[in-house]
Amino acid sequence: MGSTQARIAVDAMGGDFAPGEIVAGALRAQAELGVEVLLVGDPEQIKAVMKQHNTSLQLEIVPAEGIIEMHEEPLSGIRRKPKASINVAMDLVKQGRADAVVSAGHSGAAMASALLRLGRIKGIDRPAIGTVLPTMDANKSVLILDVGANVDCRPKFLEQFAVMGNVYSQYVLGVDQPKVGLLNIGEESSKGNDLALRTYELLEQNSSLTFIGNAEGRDVLSGRFDVIVCDGFVGNVLLKFAEAVGEILLQILREELPRGWRGRLGAMLLKPNLRRIKQRVDHAEHGGGLLLGVDGICIISHGSSQAPSVFNAIRLAKEAVDHDVLDRIRSQYQKIQAAATNEE
Amino acid sequence: MGSTQARIAVDAMGGDFAPGEIVAGALRAQAELGVEVLLVGDPEQIKAVMKQHNTSLQLEIVPAEGIIEMHEEPLSGIRRKPKASINVAMDLVKQGRADAVVSAGHSGAAMASALLRLGRIKGIDRPAIGTVLPTMDANKSVLILDVGANVDCRPKFLEQFAVMGNVYSQYVLGVDQPKVGLLNIGEESSKGNDLALRTYELLEQNSSLTFIGNAEGRDVLSGRFDVIVCDGFVGNVLLKFAEAVGEILLQILREELPRGWRGRLGAMLLKPNLRRIKQRVDHAEHGGGLLLGVDGICIISHGSSQAPSVFNAIRLAKEAVDHDVLDRIRSQYQKIQAAATNEE
Repeated sequence: MGSTQARIAVDAMGGDFAPGEIVAGALRAQAELGVEVLLVGDPEQIKAVMKQHNTSLQLEIVPAEGIIEMHEEPLSGIRRKPKASINVAMDLVKQGRADAVVSAGHSGAAMASALLRLGRIKGIDRPAIGTVLPTMDANKSVLILDVGANVDCRPKFLEQFAVMGNVYSQYVLGVDQPKVGLLNIGEESSKGNDLALRTYELLEQNSSLTFIGNAEGRDVLSGRFDVIVCDGFVGNVLLKFAEAVGEILLQILREELPRGWRGRLGAMLLKPNLRRIKQRVDHAEHGGGLLLGVDGICIISHGSSQAPSVFNAIRLAKEAVDHDVLDRIRSQYQKIQAAATNEE
Repeated sequence: MGSTQARIAVDAMGGDFAPGEIVAGALRAQAELGVEVLLVGDPEQIKAVMKQHNTSLQLEIVPAEGIIEMHEEPLSGIRRKPKASINVAMDLVKQGRADAVVSAGHSGAAMASALLRLGRIKGIDRPAIGTVLPTMDANKSVLILDVGANVDCRPKFLEQFAVMGNVYSQYVLGVDQPKVGLLNIGEESSKGNDLALRTYELLEQNSSLTFIGNAEGRDVLSGRFDVIVCDGFVGNVLLKFAEAVGEILLQILREELPRGWRGRLGAMLLKPNLRRIKQRVDHAEHGGGLLLGVDGICIISHGSSQAPSVFNAIRLAKEAVDHDVLDRIRSQYQKIQAAATNEE
């Protein structure tokens, strides 16, 4: 796939601002990223949005019928609506007509559809959602997984997350020897709940990883770790908290900075600098989550995604395709699988 | 206790900056808060610090020998060193010579000492550490518990945390009808890990609580909830993350604001406003954690506490004493205990 253009199937109907913002992000991605976007959904609605953009770009539209609604139970929804946009998008990957899927729709449904239609990579028990966050060090980011796919985990699942995260960090994020950490409540190996204690042992013994120990909450954004593993419950709480905190900080700045005449003048002078701060803090700049462990590349975006997030999610998908992340995980996993399965 | 001065036993030897910063905070508290502070520790060292402050205040010094070191296993340390400062401080409460304990030392040791020497309130299986965080709404705070005492929890523990947090929010924080939430990964009652799903049912059925449902990570600081319960693993990760994020934001501001001449001028004009932002974000302003469920009032402060944090921790202790939080929990708990114990 390396030399040809990555083909990205975008679920045009999924998300709070679908199809308008999704199509807008897709158009920009096709124009700027050198990818081929396939828009999956209701052709009428998609064409109507395309018309508004008055573009000469020709995006292929793949017809689909309906979506899985947010209140629907994922698995039964996926089964009841085989022609829903998320299912049709996954089928494109299954059939080799696309290299990756991007969806801002029901994340549980996207996961269920990926599992049912693409299956798991051999040796992986549970796929995980990984997300990349900026750190204090402007040049470093951190990959956290799982942020929501698996709420109850066993130690070997977390070890698998570490192996997949390690590959992703190395080959997609370009980190030479990723420093892997276990999210925990203390630095010492004796700290933690039952899951953390048992996972620590597995990670310590896994020779394919550079495991540097426990990462406390305060270490997550420190830049000391390249990959941090945790169960999907803790990871999801942490991620949503992190996103909200960014917004809260920006709001406090908006409230407090322009107070008084000195404040108003100062804030005016600082406009460009404040814009840079917003960029460093704002989560929308950082794309979506990657579903690692299924046999296909899937980017799960925020339901609230607007065009810039959709654009970034498509870029993320392209990077995963260009760096052969699936093959890397497959082969890396085969190498260490014997060791990993002996552990538990 | 209401009308007489609260007597607070302060572990003068516990913490990274003990005894210097501890004694400094204690002196200020005694001067400003109308409390009587008992300094527990090595008399020589405490007197040396007092001398530096050149004060006319007479703080009682209660001699103790040694501390539980950070690397020591809490329970065995507590047992091996009966005269350690944390033990002597707890004994003062046990003997009725003090109303509360404040310590910035080994938090596990403080918990173990409280459990062994003061015991649990009848009906409470596990004490929890509660901490109060500021929210987006400048007039509202949120009490989160547990933030580290219990890494593996059962549903009824979390229900007990909710009952204790409810009492604390009502009587100490002055919230009329505290809105209680369960930290979870989605709004719907069907979301969550096994612990969350089972806890949801208990909270929903508990008629002594105003349970308003699940709180996602993004809701924690929204101001919508007065009390949020979670297991001590998630709570600890979240708290340490929240503390670090505040510092990170302040650092980004320091890095980005003064760039360029406009930036330097603007930042100069904004100095007073930036100070107010620091106050809203900085955790040191918000005191320590309260150990709820033991039969005595104990404030567990950060190991890195300096004088302002120690002062705030003593104020927190005074408030808990003045509002009879122990008696409130005891009686409230007796009332609902019958209902609570039926659930599991």
